[in-house]
Amino acid sequence: MNYPSRTIEEAVSEISKLPGIGKKSALRMALHLLKSDKQVAHSLSSALVNLVENTTFCTECHNISDQSICQICSSHRRERSIIAVVQDTKDVLAIENTGQYQGLYHVLGGVIAPVQGIGPNQLHIDALVERLRKNEEVKEVILALSPTMEGDTTAFYIRKKLAEFPIRISTIARGIPVGGDLEYTDEITLGRSILSRIDF
Amino acid sequence: MNYPSRTIEEAVSEISKLPGIGKKSALRMALHLLKSDKQVAHSLSSALVNLVENTTFCTECHNISDQSICQICSSHRRERSIIAVVQDTKDVLAIENTGQYQGLYHVLGGVIAPVQGIGPNQLHIDALVERLRKNEEVKEVILALSPTMEGDTTAFYIRKKLAEFPIRISTIARGIPVGGDLEYTDEITLGRSILSRIDF
Repeated sequence: MNYPSRTIEEAVSEISKLPGIGKKSALRMALHLLKSDKQVAHSLSSALVNLVENTTFCTECHNISDQSICQICSSHRRERSIIAVVQDTKDVLAIENTGQYQGLYHVLGGVIAPVQGIGPNQLHIDALVERLRKNEEVKEVILALSPTMEGDTTAFYIRKKLAEFPIRISTIARGIPVGGDLEYTDEITLGRSILSRIDF
Repeated sequence: MNYPSRTIEEAVSEISKLPGIGKKSALRMALHLLKSDKQVAHSLSSALVNLVENTTFCTECHNISDQSICQICSSHRRERSIIAVVQDTKDVLAIENTGQYQGLYHVLGGVIAPVQGIGPNQLHIDALVERLRKNEEVKEVILALSPTMEGDTTAFYIRKKLAEFPIRISTIARGIPVGGDLEYTDEITLGRSILSRIDF
């Protein structure tokens, strides 16, 4: 596209680098910012710089945090014997929103994906092993990873790595979603949900 | 949602002010920036500031421009007797992409929308009248506005305003889109396309 000005071309090019944003949406956003008060763009701009410059990570669970030990890790109300291993901060937020989990987390920062060049060493897996070695109070590790090929691979890898510890290793249940229709569930999910049926 | 850090909360809040972006997409973008090289966020940030601080508008057609007279208005290859009145820069780009139009533009900067508090005085309608008064070479004004209630209202308003000039005032054709199916076209469009049928 032939943009009428260099400034808007640059802005569109930068905005469209964000995930899920194409050139058209980027242009819409740029025009929106041009129409809005300048302060909107300035606040957005400084929030972004602040984000990458001042965000720190919890040294325990590797979740995003303002302090060196995050609120969850430092809370006395959390059950310290369970650790949920998740891919990302998004997943911590998702699980926290359920209100069903009171244990701690361990954020891997991704899943093993050879195609994208992400191996186990780029994830916080060794840190998890180290953490278990130090904290003998941990009795269970829940592998709360997405049921994708990469998620499953990562779960298998971690299970092998944790074999030395006398702890329970579990995974979140896979089955038919609440409100889901049996008829429209894919065979693999339905098959799994029959194999791992529970007492009623 | 209870974000794990103030920096990410701020970033999500600012990003989600952009049109079409909710909290979840904003979080995904913020996490993407955190994972990427810091330079990505810095470039985006400065492109945004640059956008709102250094973008200027063409004094003739009010389109976004790097110079005080834009490339289109200053070009000698454009037909100077036709002006297409459009809502936004987006529309200039869309029409330019067709390669079917060689005339000039006039960007209104919006359409009359009383619900959103946008009246004719906030648009560049008076500037259009002024422009026609100055340039006697203009022979036709094409009202290339979206066929919405607001677009039609604006078109009617402008037609009334331009009644004093001995020029042709046209509007872009409304009808069935190329490749569209008669059966699935809404009645209003189909009705209009019959009324404004053309010789074959």
